[in-house]
Amino acid sequence: MSYELYYWTGIQGRGEFVRLALEDARAAYTDVAREEGDDVMSAWLDGEHEGALPFAPPFLKSGRLVIAQVANILHYLGPRHGQVPDSEAKRIYAHQLQLTITDLVVEAHDVHHPVGAGAYYEDQKTEARRRAKEFRESRIPKFLQYFEKALERGGGRHALREFSYVDLSLFQVMSGLDYAFPKAMSRHDVPLLRALAKRVAERPNVAGYLASDRRLPHSENGIFRHYPELDA
Amino acid sequence: MSYELYYWTGIQGRGEFVRLALEDARAAYTDVAREEGDDVMSAWLDGEHEGALPFAPPFLKSGRLVIAQVANILHYLGPRHGQVPDSEAKRIYAHQLQLTITDLVVEAHDVHHPVGAGAYYEDQKTEARRRAKEFRESRIPKFLQYFEKALERGGGRHALREFSYVDLSLFQVMSGLDYAFPKAMSRHDVPLLRALAKRVAERPNVAGYLASDRRLPHSENGIFRHYPELDA
Repeated sequence: MSYELYYWTGIQGRGEFVRLALEDARAAYTDVAREEGDDVMSAWLDGEHEGALPFAPPFLKSGRLVIAQVANILHYLGPRHGQVPDSEAKRIYAHQLQLTITDLVVEAHDVHHPVGAGAYYEDQKTEARRRAKEFRESRIPKFLQYFEKALERGGGRHALREFSYVDLSLFQVMSGLDYAFPKAMSRHDVPLLRALAKRVAERPNVAGYLASDRRLPHSENGIFRHYPELDA
Repeated sequence: MSYELYYWTGIQGRGEFVRLALEDARAAYTDVAREEGDDVMSAWLDGEHEGALPFAPPFLKSGRLVIAQVANILHYLGPRHGQVPDSEAKRIYAHQLQLTITDLVVEAHDVHHPVGAGAYYEDQKTEARRRAKEFRESRIPKFLQYFEKALERGGGRHALREFSYVDLSLFQVMSGLDYAFPKAMSRHDVPLLRALAKRVAERPNVAGYLASDRRLPHSENGIFRHYPELDA
């Protein structure tokens, strides 16, 4: 059975966390909007299909199941593709870590859109400068140190002592933050996170994906945006 | 077995979504910080205990399990207390709806803290006014209409055709939004959500809880804050 992934074309965005899991698992999937255009998602969002009603992309169709919210999708895919340990305690912890990544992603987005996604960045640059300062000086360190400590608990090589989708998502977080805040990121000493991101990028299926044209570049349309004035 | 809930004292906050579930289930639990003070959480957040490392309160201790993130906690408690339907598809959907509530809660918080939680509201009032306008005019309607449509799909009386923790959380969302934005909320016609919130408040265990001193009032220290200048 092949999955159908629905996400905005043209950006990595939140869909990328799901893509990395599907690609690492070599799961068969169609990136539907990239084949048919973003409009294909409207009918789902308008409630014209049966089943779960998604609030926003990404959402995944797996047989008759419709699953929205990145962390929910990964929680579903993980056990099916050996991307999460077997025990209940570890699955709950993996999900918690992923939900904390979700929180970080919201904050990384809101740095450039502090007064709302309804206005362009250009119309909220002053506010963005203030939010960016706090994000760089307080939030990035807090999140990075948290995940570094989680890795330490996991024995150093994995968030959960063995490989999981959380490792893939931590790679994506580091990739995005490095792109958006190269100066701020250069000041953080997080050796375990750095080594993890490198190892993930070298996993054969991930490396193949990153070298393919399915992996879009970071850009100023995505979540992690590089505006030099927002970096330190 | 009694649960231990850890959350900041003095506010409803994110902990309230968990409290409502525990209270509705008449589950035995200790609201630990309310008995021992907020400091009791530090050792957990500093990683001095074994098991999962929480990033922030609330977190729940259930036997040896430590579970953080509201939606993760409810996903765990739901099946144990008959607060979610049995089928996998419905549990995934319940969790998705809860994660969408999580998104709304972040936005409701960021209305009064658009440039970050590190500065007082008084120091970001100008930015808050801008963000509040978009929240009132665009985001509140989008979320309310989404949940109204979800209720419609569920047959009108429940988000999931039968009672679930999502109903409890939708009650809390309506309670918080009504408190923070009475004027803006008065302009929305969401009869199914209104009727649901009323029915939830009348569930015997919920009604008992709401009338008890365990239910703290809304306040300007919580997530849903009433600042008249941010309402319409």
